[in-house]
Amino acid sequence: MGLLQTSAELLENIKKSKPLIHQLTNYVTMNDCANITLAIGASPVMANDPQEVEEMVSRAAALVINMGTLDANRVHSMLAAGRRANELGIPVILDPVGVGATALRTRTADSILKLVKLSVIRGNMSEIKHLSGLPSASHGVDSAADSTGGSEIAQKLSEKLRCVTVITGQTDIIATSEQVLKLHNGHPLLAGVTGTGCMASALIGSFCAAGNNYLAAAVGGITVMGVAGELAAGSLTEEEGLGTFRIRLFDAVSRMTPQLMLHYGKLEENHQ
Amino acid sequence: MGLLQTSAELLENIKKSKPLIHQLTNYVTMNDCANITLAIGASPVMANDPQEVEEMVSRAAALVINMGTLDANRVHSMLAAGRRANELGIPVILDPVGVGATALRTRTADSILKLVKLSVIRGNMSEIKHLSGLPSASHGVDSAADSTGGSEIAQKLSEKLRCVTVITGQTDIIATSEQVLKLHNGHPLLAGVTGTGCMASALIGSFCAAGNNYLAAAVGGITVMGVAGELAAGSLTEEEGLGTFRIRLFDAVSRMTPQLMLHYGKLEENHQ
Amino acid sequence: MGLLQTSAELLENIKKSKPLIHQLTNYVTMNDCANITLAIGASPVMANDPQEVEEMVSRAAALVINMGTLDANRVHSMLAAGRRANELGIPVILDPVGVGATALRTRTADSILKLVKLSVIRGNMSEIKHLSGLPSASHGVDSAADSTGGSEIAQKLSEKLRCVTVITGQTDIIATSEQVLKLHNGHPLLAGVTGTGCMASALIGSFCAAGNNYLAAAVGGITVMGVAGELAAGSLTEEEGLGTFRIRLFDAVSRMTPQLMLHYGKLEENHQ
Repeated sequence: MGLLQTSAELLENIKKSKPLIHQLTNYVTMNDCANITLAIGASPVMANDPQEVEEMVSRAAALVINMGTLDANRVHSMLAAGRRANELGIPVILDPVGVGATALRTRTADSILKLVKLSVIRGNMSEIKHLSGLPSASHGVDSAADSTGGSEIAQKLSEKLRCVTVITGQTDIIATSEQVLKLHNGHPLLAGVTGTGCMASALIGSFCAAGNNYLAAAVGGITVMGVAGELAAGSLTEEEGLGTFRIRLFDAVSRMTPQLMLHYGKLEENHQ
Repeated sequence: MGLLQTSAELLENIKKSKPLIHQLTNYVTMNDCANITLAIGASPVMANDPQEVEEMVSRAAALVINMGTLDANRVHSMLAAGRRANELGIPVILDPVGVGATALRTRTADSILKLVKLSVIRGNMSEIKHLSGLPSASHGVDSAADSTGGSEIAQKLSEKLRCVTVITGQTDIIATSEQVLKLHNGHPLLAGVTGTGCMASALIGSFCAAGNNYLAAAVGGITVMGVAGELAAGSLTEEEGLGTFRIRLFDAVSRMTPQLMLHYGKLEENHQ
Repeated sequence: MGLLQTSAELLENIKKSKPLIHQLTNYVTMNDCANITLAIGASPVMANDPQEVEEMVSRAAALVINMGTLDANRVHSMLAAGRRANELGIPVILDPVGVGATALRTRTADSILKLVKLSVIRGNMSEIKHLSGLPSASHGVDSAADSTGGSEIAQKLSEKLRCVTVITGQTDIIATSEQVLKLHNGHPLLAGVTGTGCMASALIGSFCAAGNNYLAAAVGGITVMGVAGELAAGSLTEEEGLGTFRIRLFDAVSRMTPQLMLHYGKLEENHQ
């Protein structure tokens, strides 16, 4: 059975079990991340104070850590929740937003990687390059970095962190230490809406909560986002623009089915 | 005159007086709460720092306290603003999001109930059960708890807190110590959008600001949300989903009239 | 060449250079500000912790400071980022949300005006009056203050602060110490959506980042918002309301062109 088929079955599991996804995410896209989690069929909780994150994560089926709009309190919460999730065997997904752009972000990513075992890490080329110790020119959080060598970089980081690495971009790269996959879905308009990366990470979290094949989970989350982007863009009339595109994205995710994933998903397996 | 008729008249008052509604609410649904408040015709202000909440609430016609995404600073603000509102005779509405899920939330709700006199409390079955001292299995913030005995629980809490108690669910229960009403509006899709509970509380706050019949205000806020949910769901085509539903919800609230409330509202009065 | 023509050329520059706009803005409208910045073709970053704002602003082409949902930490960030922006010659835009409504806001505005050199300040009549030392009745953040004497007030504040002053209202006033312009675009529905003022400031920031004619930048940002409001309102059917209006606003901004600005913009130049 192909990996996309396994991902499609995880979607069925999400709809059946409605797993609780604890998200320590940024203030900019918090509402979007909660709504995309509901749209795929899971249940979001965004509690973020150090006083309650350990308790809250213990009720959850996955933890998503997103490094946008960091502050000292949230860093503390991220580490505490991440460690607790590890103790309980709950998968942790990291979205290292803007790592490399400031010392605070770099320091925070270093602490998380040191103290928390991840299941999946998802970033853009610039962020993943930075975490791999390669030079990158981080331009805030929206990066159009050179994607040359992405497969090798993703695979190396997977080896180092023993997790699944996802680099999203024009072509998405999904790697373990043993294999690299490429996904050819998505649409340029996705870069015109804030939080589509964050939402992709929330979707990966939802898929990770539905079964313990985290490679298939990463493929599932990224496929749903990419296919939804294509469907949303395809539905636009001449008069519509980014506002309507964003709404149709939620429409498409809420109408996603295993069949649509298999029909539209363009996964290139076993690429090296 | 029926209670729904009184609620419909409160809606007219909102449109005329555009009352200022101070909301100490969570980061996830803050934008939605502000927009729903504008959509019904009131004016939102979301100032939340301890340094300014007492001043701000003194300019407002109602205060809505929502316990999502708590932290120490916000708890301090909630208590200070709530006490000041009490001194000034400004109605206070509490949305005890996730109470019972963590010690922080339970502790915070206890402090608020001890120090602040409420006009209306609105929660789901799990939250209200918890506040009534009954066992409940809180599953994060979205609860599908057993609703058996809801009328008795709501009435008892109303007696204890001397306020109106609202339990939202498939059937909404609205109680004082003397009577229990049931409202049969709403749509399952409302559970697919984050913040519909928070928005219902914001609407109740807007109605409370428009007259001092808080039972009619609670009925009004819940009726508007339920009817808007029905209208939004009814308008969806085959291709549309949760994204469009959410937008149509705001459309329906902004187009709500006393006539529509009376036409669509399904209030079962004097149920015991 | 007319000023609107210069503004239209700045829009072309935004699309070409995709400048990074650092925004220290409020929690209520953060997502909207990020999306409107993307919609006009610029790139938003909302980092707001004192630990990283100086580093982040040094990567940006403009800094927008918005005083909604203030707290001690954010005030510190605003002053630090503002001073760093000044050192680097990066334009700073201030949106003094709710100044005059509480002591915290008044104190914060005073500190910013004392320590940071602004390129543009944008507020409603009540906020600008307050900053000019005139009596104003601040009704939270949505002000429908008397606009009599707006031109003189704006011009005086421009003289005092040596920056461009914008007063948005039914007619928008844009002033330097030497001239006053009036813009007759916009639509009443804009007041029914939270954050349209904040978004206008974000757009001015995007225009300031595209060239150093800050008067033309202010005209550009305000024209785009006003024209987008007209186009969005004009597109609504009988069944649609504020939810759809808000989405169409983003559609219209994302489809804005120099040609549309020149075609629809109603700028009254050199009014005294």
